[in-house]
Amino acid sequence: MKGLKERILDSVRQDLVEIEEALAENLSPYLPVVSQVAKYIMFGGGKRIRPLLMVLSARLCGYQGGYDKTLSVVFEYLHSATLLHDDLVDGAEVRRGNPVAHSVWGNPATVLVGDFLLARSIAIAAETGNIAIIDILASTTAQMSEGEIGQLLHKGDLATDESDYMDVIRRKTAYLIQSACHVGALLAEAEEARVRALAQYGYNLGVAFQLVDDLLDYTADGQVLGKATGTDLREGKLTLPVIYALNRATNEDRNHMEEIIGDPAFTKAGFDAVLSLIKKYGGIAYARKRAHEHIDQAKRSLGIFDGSKSRGLLEDLADYVLMRKM
Amino acid sequence: MKGLKERILDSVRQDLVEIEEALAENLSPYLPVVSQVAKYIMFGGGKRIRPLLMVLSARLCGYQGGYDKTLSVVFEYLHSATLLHDDLVDGAEVRRGNPVAHSVWGNPATVLVGDFLLARSIAIAAETGNIAIIDILASTTAQMSEGEIGQLLHKGDLATDESDYMDVIRRKTAYLIQSACHVGALLAEAEEARVRALAQYGYNLGVAFQLVDDLLDYTADGQVLGKATGTDLREGKLTLPVIYALNRATNEDRNHMEEIIGDPAFTKAGFDAVLSLIKKYGGIAYARKRAHEHIDQAKRSLGIFDGSKSRGLLEDLADYVLMRKM
Repeated sequence: MKGLKERILDSVRQDLVEIEEALAENLSPYLPVVSQVAKYIMFGGGKRIRPLLMVLSARLCGYQGGYDKTLSVVFEYLHSATLLHDDLVDGAEVRRGNPVAHSVWGNPATVLVGDFLLARSIAIAAETGNIAIIDILASTTAQMSEGEIGQLLHKGDLATDESDYMDVIRRKTAYLIQSACHVGALLAEAEEARVRALAQYGYNLGVAFQLVDDLLDYTADGQVLGKATGTDLREGKLTLPVIYALNRATNEDRNHMEEIIGDPAFTKAGFDAVLSLIKKYGGIAYARKRAHEHIDQAKRSLGIFDGSKSRGLLEDLADYVLMRKM
Repeated sequence: MKGLKERILDSVRQDLVEIEEALAENLSPYLPVVSQVAKYIMFGGGKRIRPLLMVLSARLCGYQGGYDKTLSVVFEYLHSATLLHDDLVDGAEVRRGNPVAHSVWGNPATVLVGDFLLARSIAIAAETGNIAIIDILASTTAQMSEGEIGQLLHKGDLATDESDYMDVIRRKTAYLIQSACHVGALLAEAEEARVRALAQYGYNLGVAFQLVDDLLDYTADGQVLGKATGTDLREGKLTLPVIYALNRATNEDRNHMEEIIGDPAFTKAGFDAVLSLIKKYGGIAYARKRAHEHIDQAKRSLGIFDGSKSRGLLEDLADYVLMRKM
């Protein structure tokens, strides 16, 4: 029997082909360096989860037009713009097994191509002539940059609490995924309750997606993940597992963790020590439980829709978020 | 008798006060670091020429509503976002006599606050609900980032010709100033010929504005300008005066200029030698002549409007572009 991932991929293969075409098409008329940097970040193994969610959401609401793939690229462009700027801001070195864009193309081109992708995504949204869609994308873009700024402000701050963390991941990740589903429903001119249901689905899926992403930085196989585990901690990013554990640890254990985290050059042994303390205080299990809850909520939101292949796919995608290894 | 600058300032004093208020108001609800960086770049001596042009264009077309100042901030935000990212991309050190933002706040905050201002400006435009206005701003933003990328690509390239240069300044400067005038006319729901006339005025004013800006980098008093002359050349930016001179110089003079320009650490004496060769071949006079032509065209575009205080002000502003010292 096929695994969940293979089943999902089989069902969306044609959609993914068309999304790839739309992504490539939209870039070709621009300056070569734009295409090169944009392709480097966009065709380096992204999962196209955001455009796919938009397309599937539109389909679930009965959309039969031909504009969905064209519009869906907006979500990948915005996401890619964020990756380009964030890797630079974070001083990251590796993404999906490749050197980060700014180390290959330099900071100037990386800043400017990020700006271009951001601007281009808004321009594509404007072409819809649909104010509600434009509004969502404009405010999501502003929220995302506030989320990134929030993350920067909390960098290395051991007092970061769960609500600070949730605030950052909502803005930097969840709202864009929510927007993808929301815009899909709007494109299909769905009735309001369905639009709301898909926005809710996307929001919860997005929160879970980031929770799992942050978990993988502790628990993944570095080979599969395409970068070393412990990268977040090394960059001073405190995510839920460690926030939860720090909050519950004895003074002694907390001091021990803080000492290791406080020096970004910590060794593999140092990371393992932090990880084992995180596990001791249930930080991994807690973050996983929170992700589960959001996935359950996401799936419940779909209850308003009759059973269909598209609904089944969105449910499968939600389950997959919890299972993914990279 | 008062000078042109004082006359203009007297006429727009109340507008400028209201624009300043709108600029400050729109930032206050955001994260402190956003306000700080944004205020640093925005309240460091900018001339508010873009918001002012939008407000005056709307008024010339009979606009009497109260939304002009609110919307006008979009043009200052977009401009400021570009300054933040460009100074970083250019490795600049000083702007208007102050250290550049990224040397005070660091690259990460500078990248992210630039993104925020860009996103916020699109969000404010989206709030108008006016598709034509949103469209203009979205495509201008994309053009601006292409202009900056074009400039980066031509950096230090001695084969840059006048048409490459014009292409860059159109995108990085003229289209935004054009948009300000265009959007002002649209806000006033002006008839199409007037909208077109103001867009033309803005375009030509914008081209002249950048031509003069680039001239000042050769001819200004560094104290008045707020940065040393020769900065463009040091950053590898070939602007019209030097492009024109290189193109007309004897082999010997061209080689001499290229030798100096080729080493960004050139001395004051080196710069003076380049400047005197530029003058020998008429590069300063030519760029000034081109700026004059665009200002003449800008003023001619206003011919469609009856004489009025607003029309007179826009004409004065055009004349002032040619006279400014900083």
